[in-house]
Parts: sequence; structure tokens; C-alpha cells
Amino acid sequence: MLLTVIYIIAITAEAMTGALSAGRRSMDWFGVTLIACVTALGGGSVRDVLLGHYPLTWVKHPEYLVLTCCAAFVTIIIAKWMKHLRSVFLLLDAMGLIGFTIIGCQIALSMGHGFVVSAVAGVLTGVSGGILRDILCNDVPLVFRRELYASISFVAVICYWVCLEIGLPHDLTVIFTLVFGFTLRVIAIYFGLEMPKFIYKEDDAESASSTDEH
Amino acid sequence: MLLTVIYIIAITAEAMTGALSAGRRSMDWFGVTLIACVTALGGGSVRDVLLGHYPLTWVKHPEYLVLTCCAAFVTIIIAKWMKHLRSVFLLLDAMGLIGFTIIGCQIALSMGHGFVVSAVAGVLTGVSGGILRDILCNDVPLVFRRELYASISFVAVICYWVCLEIGLPHDLTVIFTLVFGFTLRVIAIYFGLEMPKFIYKEDDAESASSTDEH
Amino acid sequence: MLLTVIYIIAITAEAMTGALSAGRRSMDWFGVTLIACVTALGGGSVRDVLLGHYPLTWVKHPEYLVLTCCAAFVTIIIAKWMKHLRSVFLLLDAMGLIGFTIIGCQIALSMGHGFVVSAVAGVLTGVSGGILRDILCNDVPLVFRRELYASISFVAVICYWVCLEIGLPHDLTVIFTLVFGFTLRVIAIYFGLEMPKFIYKEDDAESASSTDEH
Repeated sequence: MLLTVIYIIAITAEAMTGALSAGRRSMDWFGVTLIACVTALGGGSVRDVLLGHYPLTWVKHPEYLVLTCCAAFVTIIIAKWMKHLRSVFLLLDAMGLIGFTIIGCQIALSMGHGFVVSAVAGVLTGVSGGILRDILCNDVPLVFRRELYASISFVAVICYWVCLEIGLPHDLTVIFTLVFGFTLRVIAIYFGLEMPKFIYKEDDAESASSTDEH
Repeated sequence: MLLTVIYIIAITAEAMTGALSAGRRSMDWFGVTLIACVTALGGGSVRDVLLGHYPLTWVKHPEYLVLTCCAAFVTIIIAKWMKHLRSVFLLLDAMGLIGFTIIGCQIALSMGHGFVVSAVAGVLTGVSGGILRDILCNDVPLVFRRELYASISFVAVICYWVCLEIGLPHDLTVIFTLVFGFTLRVIAIYFGLEMPKFIYKEDDAESASSTDEH
Repeated sequence: MLLTVIYIIAITAEAMTGALSAGRRSMDWFGVTLIACVTALGGGSVRDVLLGHYPLTWVKHPEYLVLTCCAAFVTIIIAKWMKHLRSVFLLLDAMGLIGFTIIGCQIALSMGHGFVVSAVAGVLTGVSGGILRDILCNDVPLVFRRELYASISFVAVICYWVCLEIGLPHDLTVIFTLVFGFTLRVIAIYFGLEMPKFIYKEDDAESASSTDEH
């Protein structure tokens, strides 16, 4: 119940960030709607396809698809005021990230998978909507460059898993993981915390030819 | 039967447009063949994977795969004459778009899905081959920028659905939807009709950093 | 057994090439890990999703996922010495390509598919990890431009198929295909053999607008 509410808030917030990305690329209304849907529902779809967990969420509940389309249209209308709402969005997005992660993790566990697969399912649900959005907009995915994001999703998985292992009731686990992950993400945004980067330069033929390709 | 004929014409036409896209990027013959197959068969594959509708069309009928490969090779040979055939291609592509849409919609309905899911299945079948082609060629998908294309696919879904609801026989519905959607697309090309675009500009840090990434 | 050893060497080598690609784009550690996993396990995942062959390899054997993550971290540590190991990598990658191809082909055959589908499954397993890597790094996939690579995968499929058809025992077929494909790839690298390219230029409106989009 709590998770459903969070899920609905999360897909709405993600749909709106997707629509804004599409707007930055001056796409038409169809592109905006499609990218909103992919951003909001793509993470769960990738997880379900990889785990063979059919039917997909939006196939079972087409109302979520209608909701993301509505969110896309609302974004088109209210876009000019949205820069004032940026911090609200970052918070909603943070909540969505943790909510998606918990849901993904839960589904993998309910299918009988172990820690590794459910961790991957959680992180994939959290981040791959944004990755698909950036691929469709022809960007290097932001998630690979931004402040701590995917790693917070992974920490949330560990927190969720530990709470369950030590025998906390499920509702409490969900709430605790949400609060914990959300706080971490807010701290990461506030202080601009980043993962260390891996920078690799070569000075030879292959590197040159790979640069030529842009 | 009619749909099979249209399907075969459509995958041939789409394979050829895919091969030309690959040629614009100076790909080798393997790349040309792969992009031709993805353009022609990718839309149906995306639909089938998302709906869990196995086996995929080209797995069940490998002859379609062979056909698209042949179409790719023919394109390589006759490419220099193809600019004179542009209008023929646009018409074949328009027919393919509507044919793919009807087939996608039909499959979703036959699996027992409702209007929303079958509309998505129809539009995805129609447009996602082209989206995958553009991702593999590292373009922002053309379908988000071109004249009315995906929206005509959506209108065709509505037309198909309404005809079925008012009790028209299935063959008549297919023919009527084809003629209706095809006419709309030709009108859209002729007059250069476009969907309204959503243009979103911000003048702040994130926008700048996102521009840096190109 | 032999194939398992080759598979493990192959995913390790592919994970390392993926990590280096991510390093060239200055991604953070999460991006490096994700791209390593996608490069190593993505080809098999694409094949399994398209054929409906569940559960996926890394879902059934999460230890392979752990292995690729470890390979990514090792790459980050030893990157500065890796340019001296380039030829070792090219050889491991060549072995991986043929190993992946044989495994993909075998799985499709064991599911009862014919030559066309198993050839596609083999080639997809061999090359689509690298294609996904390049899409995530926002490059035109290298496999469409490099010396003979995908085509060698295809020739290996034919070799494997012919050996089975003429009644060679399975182990011998695998070894023969490996040696044959590996030799071909080494020859292709050494002499810089390339597939013929298909270069298509138009001097009209659509071509211009498509250039504008970069």
C-alpha cells in the first residue's frame, strides 16, 4: 500500500523529468510522451524482461501508462514554471529511486532469487529508466557521471536485505530503507558527492580511430 | 492473407530504408544487414518481448529473416538508382507503417489485452524498428522529429478499434484502416504536417553541463 | 567443460574491454561496472530474451556476474599497465568471440531451432555485447566498422554446423571450430582484413537534415 503510493509518485516524477529531457531536444509531442513513458516504466520493464516476470507492470495495469502520458502533457503545459520547482523534483526523484529499488528487489526475492540477482534487479529498476531516456536522447547516460545515484540504490538494497535478514517486519523494513536511502541521496546532492571516476587515456592508434568516429 | 502480403512488402521496404541508413554511415556489409534486419523485424520483436509473446515472428518464420537479408544486399547493389525511387519508398513505408500497426494491435487483442495495451503494441510495432535503427546509427530517432508518423499509427489503432467495436467484419476493418491510415500519411507527407514540438530551454547549471556532454 | 572454461575466460576478457571503454569516457566506478557486465553478459542476455530462453545465464549463475564485477575493478587498478597487454587481449577476445558463438549456436540448437535461427543466435551472442557497450558509450558500434569480426562469427557457425552434419563427435566439433575461427580472426587482425563497406551519399534535403541532427 505504502509502496503503491510511492510507486505512483515516482512514475509521475520520472515521467516529468523524461518529458523535460525530450523538450531540451525539441521533440514533438509523441516523442515527449514516449520518452516520459520509457523513463517512468522502462526500469521495471527491463527488470521484468530480464527476469522473465510476465506480464509487465504496465501491461497488467495500463492505468499507469495513462498516468505517465497525462504527466507528460501536464509537463508540456507547466514547463515554463518548472525551473522554480527543481528542488521539489530532485526530492521526488530521490524518493522514486529508492521506491523503485525496493520494488525491484522485492519482486526478485518473491521469485526466489538470491542476494546478487535481487540487488541487480533493484538497481536496474532504479536506474535503467534514466539510462534508456538518455540513449533515446542520444546522450552518454547521465547516471554514469552524476553525483552518487546508482550506488545509493545499491546501498538501499543492502539496507533492505540486512533489515529482512535480522527479522524486521516487512513494513518497517520498507520505511526504514526509504528514509535511509532518501537521506543519503539528499546528502549526496547537497554536498555534490561523487563516485571516483576511472579515466583511461591511451596514446595510440585505436584510441585515435575511436575518437575519429564522433 | 492480405496482412501477410502487406507484412512481406513492409519488411522488405523497411529493410531497404535500414540498409540506406547504414550506408549513410559507411558501415560494412555486416552492419548493413544487421541494421536492415533490426529496422524490419525490430518493431515486432520489441512488441513480442514486452508482451511475452513467444516465439518471435522471425524465430517462427526464419524465411522473413532471409528475406530482409536479401533485401539488404539488393539495396547495396541498386543503391545508386534508389534516389529516383524515393516516392515509391515513402509510399511503401506508409503502407508498412499501417500494416505493422494493425498486426501489432491484432496480436495484443488476440492475447486478451484491452485498448491501451493493444494501442501501445500497435504503435510500437509500427515505429520501434525505426527507433532502433536510429539508435544503432547513433542518431536522435527521426520519428520524434519528422512529420506525423507515430501519431498516424495511433489514429490507425483508434480507427481499427472503432471499426471492430461497431461490428464490421475483420477483413473489411483491415482494408478500411489501411486505406484510411495510408491516406492520412500521404496527406501528412504532401503538406509537411508536423506534430507541435515541445521546446524547453533552461539557463542554468544543469542545462550547461548537459550541453557539455555532446 | 571445455566450453565452460572458455566462457569464463571470454566473459573476463570482455568485461575488461568494456571497463576500458568506460574509462575512455571517464565514467564513474558504477558506470565502469555496469558497462563491463553489459559487454560480458549482454550478448547472451539478448539471445536468451529473443529466444525466450529463461532463466538468463547470469540469473541462474550469479557467480558470473560477481566475476565480471571483479574483472571491472581489477581493470581499474591495473589499467596503466594494460596497453602492454594489448595483444594478449586481442587473442582472448578472439577466443571469446568464437566461444560465445558456439555457445549461442548450441543453445538455439538444443531448443530445436534450425540453421538460420541458430546462426543468428550464435552471431548475436558473439557480437551484441560489444554493440550494447558502444550504444551505452554513445558511439557508432565499432563492430560495424572494424576488421572482420561478425563475419568470422558467422563463418564459425557454418563450420560448427557442417561438422555436426557430417557426424563429427561434439567435442571434436567444438575444438575444430574454435581453432578454425580463432585462426581466421588472427589472420584478419594481422592483415587488417575488412568487409567491403557500403557507402551511400545523397545530395538532397533529407540527407542534409539528417546531418543537421548531430
